[in-house]
Amino acid sequence: MDAQLPSDLPADLPMDIAARLKSDLDLIPAIAQDATTGEVLMLAYMNRHSLALTLKSGRATYWSRSRNELWEKGATSGHTQKVLAISLDCDGDALLIKVEQVGAACHTGEQSCFHNPVSINPSAGER
Amino acid sequence: MDAQLPSDLPADLPMDIAARLKSDLDLIPAIAQDATTGEVLMLAYMNRHSLALTLKSGRATYWSRSRNELWEKGATSGHTQKVLAISLDCDGDALLIKVEQVGAACHTGEQSCFHNPVSINPSAGER
Repeated sequence: MDAQLPSDLPADLPMDIAARLKSDLDLIPAIAQDATTGEVLMLAYMNRHSLALTLKSGRATYWSRSRNELWEKGATSGHTQKVLAISLDCDGDALLIKVEQVGAACHTGEQSCFHNPVSINPSAGER
Repeated sequence: MDAQLPSDLPADLPMDIAARLKSDLDLIPAIAQDATTGEVLMLAYMNRHSLALTLKSGRATYWSRSRNELWEKGATSGHTQKVLAISLDCDGDALLIKVEQVGAACHTGEQSCFHNPVSINPSAGER
C-alpha cells in the first residue's frame, strides 16, 4: 500500500457494500450535495478504494482521473467535505454524498462547480 | 412534428454549447434534481443529440446505455421531467438538470433513485 496521505489508511470496502455495486464498474460517479442547503456542489468519481477510505474517514475522497491518484477533497485547498450520509442508486452505479462543505467546492472559487447556465429554448416544455 | 419519438425532432446542439463540452466526452453524466425540493432524483447520461433534444423540447431526454437508444424520461411511464434549468460544470463534463418531476423518478416507485443508504463509520469525520 502506498505511503501517500489517504492511502495510508488500510481500507477495504465492506463486502455487503461491494456486493451492491455494479460489478463491471471501476469508477463510480459520486454527486456531492450540500447537506444543509441541498445545493449540488460537484460530480467526481470514486473507485472502490476511495469509497472505502471515505467510509472509514468520513472525509470525501475521490479518484482523480486527470492525476490518476487518490484525491482527498480539500487536502490541499482546505475546502474539505465532511460526509454526513451516502446513498447508492437503484442500480448500484452512482453515489450521492451529502456533505458539510468547508469553503467553496469548486476550484474556481464558486460554491458549486455547476455555475455555467445553459440556455434552454424559452418555449420548450409547453407540450 | 411527431410528438412520439424524440429522435423525430431535428436537433443540433448550438455551437456555443457544444464548444463548452469537454471534447472527448461521448456521454455526459446528467444529474436530475427536483427544482422545488432540491432532492437529487437520478443520474443518467446524455449524448450531444439527447442534450440538443432536451434543450429544444424542454423534456429531459437521456441516452440509455443499456438499451443503446434515446430515452425521453417518462415517455412510457408518464413520469416525465420538465426541464427548468440546466448548468454545465466548471470543466464541461457534467450537467445539472433542474426538473419538475411528475410522479416518481425511480423505476422502483421511489421518488429518488438514491434510496439505498450506505453505512459510514459512526466515528468518522471527527478529525
